Amino acid sequence: MVAPSPFQRRPVQSRRGGPTKSPLSRDAIVTEALRQLTKFGLAGMSLRKVAAALDTGPASIYVYVDDLEELYALMLDRALASVELGGAHKATWRERVRRVLESYARVLAAGPGLAELALGTVAVGPNALRITERLLELLEEGGVELATGAWAVDLLVLYVTAVVAEHANGLDPAAPDGAVSRAIAGASARDYPRVHAARALLLSGSPEERFTWALDVFLAGILQTPRTARAGASKPAKRKP
Amino acid sequence: MVAPSPFQRRPVQSRRGGPTKSPLSRDAIVTEALRQLTKFGLAGMSLRKVAAALDTGPASIYVYVDDLEELYALMLDRALASVELGGAHKATWRERVRRVLESYARVLAAGPGLAELALGTVAVGPNALRITERLLELLEEGGVELATGAWAVDLLVLYVTAVVAEHANGLDPAAPDGAVSRAIAGASARDYPRVHAARALLLSGSPEERFTWALDVFLAGILQTPRTARAGASKPAKRKP
Repeated sequence: MVAPSPFQRRPVQSRRGGPTKSPLSRDAIVTEALRQLTKFGLAGMSLRKVAAALDTGPASIYVYVDDLEELYALMLDRALASVELGGAHKATWRERVRRVLESYARVLAAGPGLAELALGTVAVGPNALRITERLLELLEEGGVELATGAWAVDLLVLYVTAVVAEHANGLDPAAPDGAVSRAIAGASARDYPRVHAARALLLSGSPEERFTWALDVFLAGILQTPRTARAGASKPAKRKP
Repeated sequence: MVAPSPFQRRPVQSRRGGPTKSPLSRDAIVTEALRQLTKFGLAGMSLRKVAAALDTGPASIYVYVDDLEELYALMLDRALASVELGGAHKATWRERVRRVLESYARVLAAGPGLAELALGTVAVGPNALRITERLLELLEEGGVELATGAWAVDLLVLYVTAVVAEHANGLDPAAPDGAVSRAIAGASARDYPRVHAARALLLSGSPEERFTWALDVFLAGILQTPRTARAGASKPAKRKP
């Protein structure tokens, strides 16, 4: 039997409530879990701590969510509700793709743990579908066929998630006195001639400039690499189980 | 004062040794830490556990490494020593870039935690420099100027790291009975017309096919998006401190 989607399940009615405790609900659990996540990071959030904050025991939590994985999926989708898909009809489609992905990046960067959550959680809720739908639409406007767009969305979203995750880990790889700057400055012209020659270039650009350039690379590359042309007229390959 | 690079420091001589304990060394610490990481993942490895396995206390470990961050950097570089930069002179430069990145992906996929380590650790050791040097060389062969190549290497390596990290989290997003398949199959044609139309396409292709396609996208995009042309003749922008 296929398990129902956590996003489609009917809400459970709490038998608790009254003047002292607010009623438990899936919403309250997701809200508290997200609060902990964005304050303490992924490692600082647990079902046990969520239960404690809601003045109940872990067993009560399991009435509303099956496991941590399901809670993660609900949390991620709640967070993704804030992603702005934008109108901005005067902008080019590229510009609008960029704005959607920038909004997605800002949402993930709002607290530690969100990007980590996104990297480790399959985004399957209604908000993830909404973002996918919008990106497919914008790519279609740009002349990208559906077969190519379907893979392109995955690539774009994964890249943006990874960029935010990297920064969320507190890394500023190019901080002037950071480890990268020192390592690159110390790379000898004899052992690493190109690294040495490119030492200023390797550290150049703000995160924003690099992000914008990367998206330009992706969109140019996607337009140049239609999937149907590569695969001929064959049906899309079946993914191995 | 700028701290010395952990990769350049002179080895500390252990005063321990003899018949019962093998001498402590930075190498022994990195070896044990990597063993724990690839067996138990990042959360299953700690300075305390490394010390215990080496039959010593955490304080002794700090003689050899300053902190966990330094240990991570040493571990990552040790792992990266296995990345094959290849000769294969008959292959095209694109093919050779692909092989280097595939080798990098295989190295990170060798155990849980390695990709996570790579996402959270600035790679600055000699092996990271060796990989950067090789990729700059191959991109140069392909006609990519150094200013563009310098940013392109970062983009390529980050993407591959993220792909492996996503899989290392035990996600097979497109497993036929997995959450993604169910969510996409359940996306209604009314609410999500493009997701619905693309439902087979969104799940098509093996991880290898998608990886190969993504690299084709990147390389085509990189060739189309020279950084010098965008920035005009201006000097590369200084990264904000």
